[in-house]
Amino acid sequence: MKTAERILVTSLALFNQHGENNVSSVDIAMELDISPGNLYYHFKGKEVIVAALFDWYQTQFNALLNASKDHALSLEEFFYYLYLLMEQAQTFRFFYLNTGDLADKYPKVAKSFFRQLGLLENHLTTMLQHFVRMEQLSIPDTQKVQVVELIGLVFSQAGNYYTLKGHDVTKEDFIYQSLAVVLFALLPYARLPESELRHLQDAIRCHDLAAQ
Amino acid sequence: MKTAERILVTSLALFNQHGENNVSSVDIAMELDISPGNLYYHFKGKEVIVAALFDWYQTQFNALLNASKDHALSLEEFFYYLYLLMEQAQTFRFFYLNTGDLADKYPKVAKSFFRQLGLLENHLTTMLQHFVRMEQLSIPDTQKVQVVELIGLVFSQAGNYYTLKGHDVTKEDFIYQSLAVVLFALLPYARLPESELRHLQDAIRCHDLAAQ
Repeated sequence: MKTAERILVTSLALFNQHGENNVSSVDIAMELDISPGNLYYHFKGKEVIVAALFDWYQTQFNALLNASKDHALSLEEFFYYLYLLMEQAQTFRFFYLNTGDLADKYPKVAKSFFRQLGLLENHLTTMLQHFVRMEQLSIPDTQKVQVVELIGLVFSQAGNYYTLKGHDVTKEDFIYQSLAVVLFALLPYARLPESELRHLQDAIRCHDLAAQ
Repeated sequence: MKTAERILVTSLALFNQHGENNVSSVDIAMELDISPGNLYYHFKGKEVIVAALFDWYQTQFNALLNASKDHALSLEEFFYYLYLLMEQAQTFRFFYLNTGDLADKYPKVAKSFFRQLGLLENHLTTMLQHFVRMEQLSIPDTQKVQVVELIGLVFSQAGNYYTLKGHDVTKEDFIYQSLAVVLFALLPYARLPESELRHLQDAIRCHDLAAQ
């Protein structure tokens, strides 16, 4: 791995573990066993590292967002898609840990980060409309905004919530617990055959979602 | 107001605005126009201030928790109760802003803070059981945990979520938006007369909940 890449991977790990606020450039250099001068040669300060990490996240996020646009998903595939989105957000979780602080320190990155959630919510709205059109979900127009907010809230904050609960859950556990909450809210509106619904419920309960 | 009280009120305002991490004892003393020595006379460091603020929050939180135990609430009163809980959490919102970081720095306070969420979730479970017994809600036993997690997630993380959305919403707006999400999830399970349900929906839509 090249030094620039190693710097990014190590910074991401340190930011996720300790919070961006508690990690200095010197900490990163020490962890990598390189001199602060060498670090500075590659990245001119922590702001540039944070921006590069966000670019990395954004590229992966957009790839996942666009992949789901290529073909219409089933409701079960939709939940798998949410799983992948949440897993990706966990990989870059320091962005979600202390958003207000990040916005103060890195307003440009924060602006792109906020826009990214907006893009996701627009895309979720389109997907819900598709499910309504296909008569797989029966949600009144006036309540679509609540569904999108519910999924947005779960997607972006479940990590913080399970930290606050102080539970020692694995990443997979809390993503599935979060999906069970979303499924609970959507279930009364689902218009799928009983067998498909049961399959989806079982897949989430048994932590066994997979792309179809 | 006595100096000790002024210190707490000012610290709370600064922590909420800038994050606890970004506010030093010297900042607090400067804001109050007192000497750091005078501050130290009242509180031996920021850790003592954070602990005193949590005691203050806990006292108010317990009062609200116990008030709802005195008599059985209607479903509409339950939503008003959630409103009050969220409003109170917003008053002490710095605890919710960066919980992981707080837990690293103030493990004792964090432990009590985590236990407080546990108490709330236990109490929510009891309240839901009451609604089920009164045949006002029809939620399968297996799904009660999802309802409690949904409300816990909304209660504790809605502030972070609306910050992330970058919306310039008032405290009242985002609390009502959050309650609309909870109502959306509970509505299919509610077994109230149509007129009462409509009244509750209107009250949340028009930002007009009130104790009965």
